[in-house]
Amino acid sequence: MTRTVLMPAETIPTVIDDAIRVAVSTVIFTLRRLPGSDAAAVALPLVRRTRDPHEGQWALPGGWLDVTEDLGAAASRTLAETTGLAPSYLEQLYAFGAIDRSPSRVVSIVYWALIRPDEIVDAVENVSWFDAAALPELAFDHNEIVDYALWRLRNKVGYSRIAHGLLADEFTLAELREVYETILGRRLDPANFRRQVENSGNLIPTERFRTGSHRPARLYRYNQDVELAERGPLGARD
Amino acid sequence: MTRTVLMPAETIPTVIDDAIRVAVSTVIFTLRRLPGSDAAAVALPLVRRTRDPHEGQWALPGGWLDVTEDLGAAASRTLAETTGLAPSYLEQLYAFGAIDRSPSRVVSIVYWALIRPDEIVDAVENVSWFDAAALPELAFDHNEIVDYALWRLRNKVGYSRIAHGLLADEFTLAELREVYETILGRRLDPANFRRQVENSGNLIPTERFRTGSHRPARLYRYNQDVELAERGPLGARD
Repeated sequence: MTRTVLMPAETIPTVIDDAIRVAVSTVIFTLRRLPGSDAAAVALPLVRRTRDPHEGQWALPGGWLDVTEDLGAAASRTLAETTGLAPSYLEQLYAFGAIDRSPSRVVSIVYWALIRPDEIVDAVENVSWFDAAALPELAFDHNEIVDYALWRLRNKVGYSRIAHGLLADEFTLAELREVYETILGRRLDPANFRRQVENSGNLIPTERFRTGSHRPARLYRYNQDVELAERGPLGARD
Repeated sequence: MTRTVLMPAETIPTVIDDAIRVAVSTVIFTLRRLPGSDAAAVALPLVRRTRDPHEGQWALPGGWLDVTEDLGAAASRTLAETTGLAPSYLEQLYAFGAIDRSPSRVVSIVYWALIRPDEIVDAVENVSWFDAAALPELAFDHNEIVDYALWRLRNKVGYSRIAHGLLADEFTLAELREVYETILGRRLDPANFRRQVENSGNLIPTERFRTGSHRPARLYRYNQDVELAERGPLGARD
């Protein structure tokens, strides 16, 4: 039997207002040469919000989780929809769920990835790349999210091959050192750096050299036999 | 103006069925001496489910996120309600959100913590402690969650002071080594282990000794001036 109830239409949205909604956001880091400088900087894409809350402010790319998609799939989809970017691998960063982080109750599952400068899609509407060290005030708690992602980036660079995601398949030791220096925000001694990476077993020297205005520098590649510790047993799963 | 719509009562629950719900679960690790053995094992508490889905099966302690509480607060509350346990600090592990992990769509934010054997509350209804290496088939994807938590535990023990959460404030090097051996599942050379921890700067020798059936062993404590890397900039926040 189908009972029929009378209900003012206005009461239906309260089901939504009382609910907890799940969103995904993504922090994409790359290294960019700053205009008018020789130095590289950690940069990330932000999207200008076109609606309230926080209309007109910059925010991380993201959107709502759809009931029919996994968390990682939602992060990839919303990232592509807003920025056109498609990194090969997104890693889950953290779930942000403080009560007051949005006018309604939203738990945001945040993913992050590194991409090489040549993977960047330029000139997408409402998208701009920012120096991570000089961000404006972002929407919601997104400044705090970026700070946390930067902290993870700096921690990971010490014990994993995370710099790989920012380099071409083959690179010189000077290029690798610059990635480390930019992420860590300090200079590294070239001789010590060379000794450490050569002893790590992570790098394989090739027979090719980078030539140009400087003396030829040997190209290296990462040893793919060493397990990518940061992926963990879940791989690219949710 | 209030519009009134006619709606069969049966359609209302579909709002809930289509929704994504947020749950929290917690993995609590301790070291326990196995019955009839001198060896310690990593153990965790599980709760027997008293309703469907998976009625009668063992599951991680947890429950639904309330709209008025932060993620970490929800993890602490549901852990206390189900097991009586109250660790001083819970760390977020991962958000599990695969579409098929539950009959309805549930995203579970999983927290984890270590507790010392003397913090354990025994004899709570429907709660039992299991050897992490010999679990039955758990409800939902909880076997996969425990496997991931064990992987994180083994990874963290190498580069942080995570073993601290399993020891009293003062401990012998043999006790510390046993924690590492149990987590890593292999024996460590006592002399090498002593040299490594003494060189790490993490431990401070005290003037006190453990006496008993063996020769007196010096007690150590952790150097609180060394930052707890695993807490991160968020501390105990969500």
